[in-house]
Amino acid sequence: MEGMIGVFDSGFGGLTVHRALVDAFPERDFLYFGDNRNAPYGGRPPIEVLNLTCGAMERLFAEGCTLVVIACNTASVVALRWIQQQWLPVRRREDGVARNVIGVAVPTIEEATEGEGGGVIAVFATRRTVESGVYPLEIGKRRPGLAVEQQACEELAGAIERGAARGELRGLVDGYVGELLGRLGKAPETVILGCTHYPLVADLFAAALPAGVRMIHQPAATARALKGYLARHPEYDASCGGARRWLSTGFPAEAMPLVERFWGGGLPFEVSAGPGV
Amino acid sequence: MEGMIGVFDSGFGGLTVHRALVDAFPERDFLYFGDNRNAPYGGRPPIEVLNLTCGAMERLFAEGCTLVVIACNTASVVALRWIQQQWLPVRRREDGVARNVIGVAVPTIEEATEGEGGGVIAVFATRRTVESGVYPLEIGKRRPGLAVEQQACEELAGAIERGAARGELRGLVDGYVGELLGRLGKAPETVILGCTHYPLVADLFAAALPAGVRMIHQPAATARALKGYLARHPEYDASCGGARRWLSTGFPAEAMPLVERFWGGGLPFEVSAGPGV
Repeated sequence: MEGMIGVFDSGFGGLTVHRALVDAFPERDFLYFGDNRNAPYGGRPPIEVLNLTCGAMERLFAEGCTLVVIACNTASVVALRWIQQQWLPVRRREDGVARNVIGVAVPTIEEATEGEGGGVIAVFATRRTVESGVYPLEIGKRRPGLAVEQQACEELAGAIERGAARGELRGLVDGYVGELLGRLGKAPETVILGCTHYPLVADLFAAALPAGVRMIHQPAATARALKGYLARHPEYDASCGGARRWLSTGFPAEAMPLVERFWGGGLPFEVSAGPGV
Repeated sequence: MEGMIGVFDSGFGGLTVHRALVDAFPERDFLYFGDNRNAPYGGRPPIEVLNLTCGAMERLFAEGCTLVVIACNTASVVALRWIQQQWLPVRRREDGVARNVIGVAVPTIEEATEGEGGGVIAVFATRRTVESGVYPLEIGKRRPGLAVEQQACEELAGAIERGAARGELRGLVDGYVGELLGRLGKAPETVILGCTHYPLVADLFAAALPAGVRMIHQPAATARALKGYLARHPEYDASCGGARRWLSTGFPAEAMPLVERFWGGGLPFEVSAGPGV
């Protein structure tokens, strides 16, 4: 079906973004693609993240998507800019179709840097996302005066993905927040949860952080950015039957409770080929 | 040998840059790597150019190079920025060695945008280089007032590579220059020959262009940039025995006259593995 919106993640975390997009655009057709077989991307070499992400874009384009949301921070910060600058222009010329790919990092940064407020922005994310430096770089471009402090949360996404108990997750979150506050010596004004797994523990972050800290909700920020994007790009205004499909490169049956945790209910995933490394 | 300078090209064109580097730094150790088996890169999909270029960097690092010059415009404009921003930081952390990669496009642009002169900069290059938009983008960042006009020379690099006769090459160059002058309606102030094959037909470009046009010599610009880089980065100041090696992924014996054309004499190429696609 032409004109569908594709949503891509390395696994289930992107379902938190997908949920917000479906709620914001109930009339649009969506296709979700989770590369669970190759998840997580956070610890993979950058060249593998790039190849897997390009392969996923091909898969979604082949199904008829013209606009894709990369609902994965690792893929967004490692691969998106190169895809937009180098890969897409050639792809568009070759098949003569308007196509675009947007990510979750820039919408989050746009929301975090709105207004005139000062202070420190704290970013909690995977190691690969922290290492890419994209959050400090892009925040600095928009608001050179703002300080950014990053905190790599090595084990958090994995613990959420394997369904760890709340007590264990609370311990991890308290530890990461404590490390960051210790380095800062004061409370940040704004907090970015820069991983699509973290909305599931947003309450634990809120409890661990001092009162009054503003937390950016990444799925809502992405839905808002997509709304603005579609308003500026009527060429993507097609395919509005409210159709939904979910593809995955494969996961064991025991992982189904995870889907319910991320989505709020079961989903009829179809097993799909590619991308491969 | 640690501390060598690597020089990489998809084939023989980079020998024009390598020649200028060896002349400028006779005491340094150099290793040239030509991926002739996969040449030319100009018509390949961007993702292949990126993977081949990363593979070539790995090959040169494995031989002991710590600084690599990408002496290929296609690889420089498609892959270099991503390699610098995403691939190298992880690679450096993993092996704990200072490494860097520089290209031919930025040195050329720096030389072309020096001074206060105005007017139009004309860029002759392969289709992939033109399509990347890197030359207009980077020139615009440095000198927003300058106009840039690009001309894709679809057949020129291939004709030089296969050893076409001078008359045929003159016809091609006259045609591309004529197309550009027709669009511009006036002479450009500055001309960039944005492909490492074109120094071999620089005289044909000079003859086809109106008198007084400034032509940027890409090998000399790259040598000058490397000199400045090494002065700013003494950590690469090692390995000075004047050693030379040339690796290639393979070419037929009939191609040897091409080496002589690009280098000015024969070279003892060793056949080397990788990179592959």
